[in-house]
Amino acid sequence: MRARDLAIEYPTVTPDDTAMDAARLLAGRGLPGLVVVDDRRRAVAVVPGSRLLRQIVPPHVRDDPNLARVYDERHADRLCAKLADRTVADLLEDERTPLPVVDADATVMEIASVMAGARSPVVAVSDDERHPEKGAVIGVVTAAHLLDRLLPAAGDA
Amino acid sequence: MRARDLAIEYPTVTPDDTAMDAARLLAGRGLPGLVVVDDRRRAVAVVPGSRLLRQIVPPHVRDDPNLARVYDERHADRLCAKLADRTVADLLEDERTPLPVVDADATVMEIASVMAGARSPVVAVSDDERHPEKGAVIGVVTAAHLLDRLLPAAGDA
Repeated sequence: MRARDLAIEYPTVTPDDTAMDAARLLAGRGLPGLVVVDDRRRAVAVVPGSRLLRQIVPPHVRDDPNLARVYDERHADRLCAKLADRTVADLLEDERTPLPVVDADATVMEIASVMAGARSPVVAVSDDERHPEKGAVIGVVTAAHLLDRLLPAAGDA
Repeated sequence: MRARDLAIEYPTVTPDDTAMDAARLLAGRGLPGLVVVDDRRRAVAVVPGSRLLRQIVPPHVRDDPNLARVYDERHADRLCAKLADRTVADLLEDERTPLPVVDADATVMEIASVMAGARSPVVAVSDDERHPEKGAVIGVVTAAHLLDRLLPAAGDA
């Protein structure tokens, strides 16, 4: 079993997408984060859900969380609308969470090692064996998915 | 809409559970991580999936990822079996990812602010308004779930 056999489809966004589109995708699919790829589907980064939430928190609330209680629902709705004015690229400028990449021939242990080392919940699988980071993302492997394939069936252990 | 209205049930483990039970839960439900509570259901920490994978990567492979390719599936299976010998408490000794806590009256903006500040994909909702960290966890709010409630319906914005 190699990375190409384990790779599953996972929703992606590009740097040109709006933060609103990214937020809708994340919310609609119940995802912890999104995978960002460029126009040639090369791995760019991960955008965790908390990064999107950060956009709707006004700077003075970030500095003093006690101010948050005065914001009612309407305020929050209005702040959410601002997501339409920002792109995924803008979010990545703030802070970039690396998306680790393995090649399609990577073994289970290689994938586990890369995810553990990067403390990443997801690794991208690339179609370029020699330079994985330059290849196109053909899918991802999540920690849950990898463990599901690796764990002995209950009662076997 | 307050934290109590937003809180959803989310699988939890306790420090006494084995890492194997935690891994099975994570794998079976396709979760990015697990919420750890103590025997009084107080928030303890988060265990990301990558922390569980770290347990099956031998130390010399952690130090030199190039060694990972020599491990075949059988090796990985055997290493997985070791998860039965470790507890969630052992994993937390390695490294502890904080689980942010809000009280049941927290507003949407407070929750967003706490999650953004902690860069956490999840926040626990506690039943103790004055000392949230001392209360029992009544549920969690994820970033995806919060955005789902906050985002204007497509076309509205």
